[in-house]
Amino acid sequence: MRIVRFEHQGRIQFGARRGSHVAPFAGLAGGSFAALLAGLRDGTPLPEAEAVAQTQVNLLPPVPLTGKIICIGLNYADHAREGGHPIPTYPAVFLRTATSLVGHGQPLLRPMASDRFDYEAELAVVIGRTARHVRAAEALDFVAGYSCFNDGSLRDFQRKSTQWTMGKNFDKSGSIGPELVTQEALPSGVGNLRIAARLNGETLQDGSTGDMIFPVPDLIEILSAVMTLDPGDVIATGTPAGVGFARTPPRFMQAGDLIEIEIEGIGILANTIVDEASGAGEQEGVRR
Amino acid sequence: MRIVRFEHQGRIQFGARRGSHVAPFAGLAGGSFAALLAGLRDGTPLPEAEAVAQTQVNLLPPVPLTGKIICIGLNYADHAREGGHPIPTYPAVFLRTATSLVGHGQPLLRPMASDRFDYEAELAVVIGRTARHVRAAEALDFVAGYSCFNDGSLRDFQRKSTQWTMGKNFDKSGSIGPELVTQEALPSGVGNLRIAARLNGETLQDGSTGDMIFPVPDLIEILSAVMTLDPGDVIATGTPAGVGFARTPPRFMQAGDLIEIEIEGIGILANTIVDEASGAGEQEGVRR
Repeated sequence: MRIVRFEHQGRIQFGARRGSHVAPFAGLAGGSFAALLAGLRDGTPLPEAEAVAQTQVNLLPPVPLTGKIICIGLNYADHAREGGHPIPTYPAVFLRTATSLVGHGQPLLRPMASDRFDYEAELAVVIGRTARHVRAAEALDFVAGYSCFNDGSLRDFQRKSTQWTMGKNFDKSGSIGPELVTQEALPSGVGNLRIAARLNGETLQDGSTGDMIFPVPDLIEILSAVMTLDPGDVIATGTPAGVGFARTPPRFMQAGDLIEIEIEGIGILANTIVDEASGAGEQEGVRR
Repeated sequence: MRIVRFEHQGRIQFGARRGSHVAPFAGLAGGSFAALLAGLRDGTPLPEAEAVAQTQVNLLPPVPLTGKIICIGLNYADHAREGGHPIPTYPAVFLRTATSLVGHGQPLLRPMASDRFDYEAELAVVIGRTARHVRAAEALDFVAGYSCFNDGSLRDFQRKSTQWTMGKNFDKSGSIGPELVTQEALPSGVGNLRIAARLNGETLQDGSTGDMIFPVPDLIEILSAVMTLDPGDVIATGTPAGVGFARTPPRFMQAGDLIEIEIEGIGILANTIVDEASGAGEQEGVRR
């Protein structure tokens, strides 16, 4: 099933994608992810209210992002090489915050502080059951589904210290969506799916999820040996070669650009770039 | 004011510390941090229900930890040196997840995966107003208060890759509390407060918050240039020298140990260590 989360007439709801329409799930208490998972697990199809044209709704990240957003660095050998890094023997892990992410179709913000705004096409795994000390062989039982992820990065800030966190956590610098695709529609463990990034229609990354150094089941084993993975937690599994900073000449995203992340069978996550100065930052307490 | 958050008779509430008692704030909707902040801002004293002995309640982290938990590495020169790091010119930033933290008096978990469990005494800053692009000179207007923080670290996992995240995010490996101390009770910007860690009564860290390389106002300026800081977000401001891994011989925490973090005027955060195997991990979905 292809699950969307959206805002329509002031209400946030989960629903199913039906072609160009979205059909809200009826009777899911409060739009909570736990209620959605319970409904999916039940086995009987979730009742759907009348479908609405997708153009009438505001798509949101397919999960509420109230839990962990765990990102894996250097999980494709060709990307590790293009950045001058050795091939890792243990995953490089960092975290993103919910404030750093938007959904499909929402603008990505190129911040005032940096002009080195780069894309990274990634497969996102969404956890469906509490997982701790799970072995790789059983790990896929704990997955709710998959989505596309753009691990947008401000490269100068990523390298201001040894820790990448700042360059990975600018407000609205990354995205996830458009849909949460449940596992039955996909090859087990997502096998070999083509994964690409396109900037204004030009393909700049073109890899396969089969080339991950640490495939999805291994990541779940490694992460759950350290921390409890909760329903709704997201694992962004790393990016293949072709990112902007490693190109000759480098390619960074500019206001007006369209960046698309496509994963075979999972979807196309599209966002346009806007400059922060052009309208961001009208929150309470902003001082310039 | 000294604010506690606690569970009593199945209800999570905020309240004021009154000596050996805690007095729940009456009429705060749903125990939310936003409601607490609104109540504090109002200026009139929050009405208090009948006080309860602290021994009758279960103290929780003084903020709900639903937002960002931002940690600063190497923010004291003597600690950077003891780890063999250069003095940073930009903060080393990493994130912790809520699953990695407990409150005062709750056990810290020494995980099955590592015996290199180290303490780090830190001052925690809790954000009280949405902050973006805030200058250091105004930064303290955005602070709700301060608490003690133990940035518990599994040193072998911290160094399995260049990114420290895994060693900093084991379940229940760190703590925050016991109280959120509002600013009016403290020197501006917390000045020079003595900060110490004691293991089974022996002082192993003994520094001053005045020795931070990036003091609290600078951290808020630097962080808010990258990301929106929301009410309830926590900034753990780094640790002085004396951590276990840098001692000769190294000192790591064992089951039964008592670790205390004390900051002058802010409080004493005390936790005992238990081994994970001795009772942790009875959650849904745990596989051994």
